[in-house]
Amino acid sequence: LLQQKVDELYPADLAEVLVDTTEEETEVLVDLIEEEKLAHILAEVDYEVEKKLLKFLSNNRLTYILDEMYSDDVVDLLGALNIGQTKEFLTLMKQEEAEQIQHLLGYDEESAGGRMTTEYIAMKQDKTVAESIQKLRDIAPEAEMIYYIYVVDEKQELTGVLSMRELIAASPEKKVKDIMHEQVITVNLSLDQEEVAQIISKYDLLAVPVVNRQGLLLGIITFDDILDVIEEEATEDMHKMAGNVEVDVEHEGEVINGVIRRLPWLIILLFASLLSANVLEFFEDVLNTVVILTFFMPTLAGTGGNAATQSLAVVVRGLAIGDIKSKEILGYLWNELKVGVLIALSCGLIIGLVAFIWQGNYMLGTVVGLAMIGNIITATVIGTAMPFIINYFGADPAVAAGPFITTLIDVFGYFIYFSLAKLFINYL
Amino acid sequence: LLQQKVDELYPADLAEVLVDTTEEETEVLVDLIEEEKLAHILAEVDYEVEKKLLKFLSNNRLTYILDEMYSDDVVDLLGALNIGQTKEFLTLMKQEEAEQIQHLLGYDEESAGGRMTTEYIAMKQDKTVAESIQKLRDIAPEAEMIYYIYVVDEKQELTGVLSMRELIAASPEKKVKDIMHEQVITVNLSLDQEEVAQIISKYDLLAVPVVNRQGLLLGIITFDDILDVIEEEATEDMHKMAGNVEVDVEHEGEVINGVIRRLPWLIILLFASLLSANVLEFFEDVLNTVVILTFFMPTLAGTGGNAATQSLAVVVRGLAIGDIKSKEILGYLWNELKVGVLIALSCGLIIGLVAFIWQGNYMLGTVVGLAMIGNIITATVIGTAMPFIINYFGADPAVAAGPFITTLIDVFGYFIYFSLAKLFINYL
Ligand SMILES: [Mg+2]
Ligand SMILES: [Mg+2]
Ligand SMILES: [Mg+2]
Ligand SMILES: [Mg+2]
Ligand SMILES: [Mg+2]
Ligand SMILES: [Mg+2]
Ligand SMILES: [Mg+2]
Ligand SMILES: [Mg+2]
Ligand SMILES: [Mg+2]
Ligand SMILES: [Mg+2]
Ligand SMILES: [Mg+2]
Ligand SMILES: [Mg+2]
Ligand SMILES: [Mg+2]
Repeated sequence: LLQQKVDELYPADLAEVLVDTTEEETEVLVDLIEEEKLAHILAEVDYEVEKKLLKFLSNNRLTYILDEMYSDDVVDLLGALNIGQTKEFLTLMKQEEAEQIQHLLGYDEESAGGRMTTEYIAMKQDKTVAESIQKLRDIAPEAEMIYYIYVVDEKQELTGVLSMRELIAASPEKKVKDIMHEQVITVNLSLDQEEVAQIISKYDLLAVPVVNRQGLLLGIITFDDILDVIEEEATEDMHKMAGNVEVDVEHEGEVINGVIRRLPWLIILLFASLLSANVLEFFEDVLNTVVILTFFMPTLAGTGGNAATQSLAVVVRGLAIGDIKSKEILGYLWNELKVGVLIALSCGLIIGLVAFIWQGNYMLGTVVGLAMIGNIITATVIGTAMPFIINYFGADPAVAAGPFITTLIDVFGYFIYFSLAKLFINYL
Repeated sequence: LLQQKVDELYPADLAEVLVDTTEEETEVLVDLIEEEKLAHILAEVDYEVEKKLLKFLSNNRLTYILDEMYSDDVVDLLGALNIGQTKEFLTLMKQEEAEQIQHLLGYDEESAGGRMTTEYIAMKQDKTVAESIQKLRDIAPEAEMIYYIYVVDEKQELTGVLSMRELIAASPEKKVKDIMHEQVITVNLSLDQEEVAQIISKYDLLAVPVVNRQGLLLGIITFDDILDVIEEEATEDMHKMAGNVEVDVEHEGEVINGVIRRLPWLIILLFASLLSANVLEFFEDVLNTVVILTFFMPTLAGTGGNAATQSLAVVVRGLAIGDIKSKEILGYLWNELKVGVLIALSCGLIIGLVAFIWQGNYMLGTVVGLAMIGNIITATVIGTAMPFIINYFGADPAVAAGPFITTLIDVFGYFIYFSLAKLFINYL
């Protein structure tokens, strides 16, 4: 009965089940799952589950499973293990395959090379359509993506591409070179996975071929892995924006993991915020004289931070999905400045009126209103420019940009506020 | 020469070029682009470019283009126009197709029904493999996705699926029903696009069939549109987290657009932050007596906000990609609480020491440290629970959660801080 249930479930569903199973349950299940399915499951699961599964797999079964898996998934699997284990696994594979995997393991995990699979379909251009279809039938079970056929010459140089759709619609006696597209969209080995995703998404491709600088075809990256890349990158950006550090070593307990993920940035930001404390100490006399000024500190700092975060999110996301190009900074900044001034005037007017009515002090209203205007304009400019600047220096613009900027804006905001207050102190 | 350049460019590249062209340039280009390519371009571009292009297309060309376009793209195109224009466009189409499009326009834009295309391949189960391949050759140019063949009975009920890969590898005399999979992954018409994306991504599908409650096949959603959905939803979540309102009407100038996108939430949050001002007014006597307490306000509020945002990002993103299920709230909250306490103790100790050393006042250190501990624990609990609660009430947990929470945390943080200070006022 359990066997039947296991046979019915898709690998992705079994992978989900295996996240929560105990060691004993895992052992029972692993025995019931056939190797082909295990190959798919191992391609899907996280390191934690991977480790749990590997414990109950004999070398015999592993040899078979590794052969079944596509090379990109084998690379992911081995990449998570330590060197000793990786070497042991490589001995289970045919020498040729082991060498290929070792080669693939050398590429940066987040580059095209690190993401590609070598199980693609390549044809020579002099084959006829009928011959090609026959060849497809034979190698279909081996390849990860059979709907694109890549055309290569003797030197393995990529010279064309055609889709299975075109192949099947063409008359059987035609030659591949007569129906192939010679202008092929490719990505370079070292291209970042995020840019690979942009290309796949822009041209709606099922897969994109990876070539080296000589134009030799080395592998392909398929849409399903790109779906994962887009989700991963979006998650990463959201966490960076929120000041969560990526936890590379996911092997600890969840609580320790959570602390490692969050504490470092919190402490850095805590010390950064002491700059604001210094600004306040600098204006101690003003604070001593007019305590009501304190009341508007949260609103000023909060609104400035919010305005900065808004600008920031637009630029960070725009740069990430390619809607904004990094060279467009000046025009973009000018546009944002106009938006910022309008928002600043609106918020300045509102808080100025609130302060005036609440405390019945028109000069307080003026100071608070002006401070808000200066604060929001500063916030908008910094929030817009900062991601471009970080990007220019080659770092990821999402790097803890949110809380980092908010903390910075606080300093400027308080400085503007209390400078104005000091200027008008006699009328407050 | 220009003609040659135009012919060489992919539709997606031409779409990018057309974003920046003047009216005159657009007119020249539109004349040079063939209808089939225009169909692809219109499927890619935003409303702004769409409007620019439509201006220079004769009804004759439009009729041809609309026929070339897939139904999901026609629906997107017409959905952006006003009712009068939509009706005019529908008259250009064959009656049968016009009726189908009108039907599709009735579904929620972000549901499976609103995203699906009706150009899929369906076969009867008694066809042989050879017959099926022959039929595929004939209808291939019409269908958006020919690599999955859906098997339906006389009532259009979906009974199976097989891939082109399986079809081509099967022996020609076999029947479809002998090689098809009877267990088909489907989505319901009304399923949200985000959940459709999760399913496509989980099972690595090229397309997923959309069925109604009777199990009738109504359309399919393809991976390329899902790539767009994932990007769209991630963008939306990032903007919501940053307090940017989605601008539905994208037709205004960019500056006005920017103001509309940002001002509403800023003003709401501005008024919310006045709660903090009230808390401070409530503790006016404390503030008057010990001004140095003010110095630590930015650090306390900032760290609390940062801690809340961190927890928030983890839950919002986890809920969005399905890593966290909404029913897991209690266990999750308990876990986060443990993380929060550890972080709170660390940050409390640090800021307490800083305050003590800086001002040489151990009681100040104690108050500031304890306030930080209370503040971070509150922040973690609220930041974790809030997205679950918003989700429970059917709203999107990313709704301006970031700045909204930060503003809320400020109020609690200041209240805890000055309550403690009041308690120990005689020792400060
Ligand atoms: Mg990899
Ligand atoms: Mg990256
Ligand atoms: Mg696309
Ligand atoms: Mg793969
Ligand atoms: Mg996969
Ligand atoms: Mg990234
Ligand atoms: Mg049509
Ligand atoms: Mg649509
Ligand atoms: Mg949605
Ligand atoms: Mg997947
Ligand atoms: Mg489509
Ligand atoms: Mg498309
Ligand atoms: Mg969403």
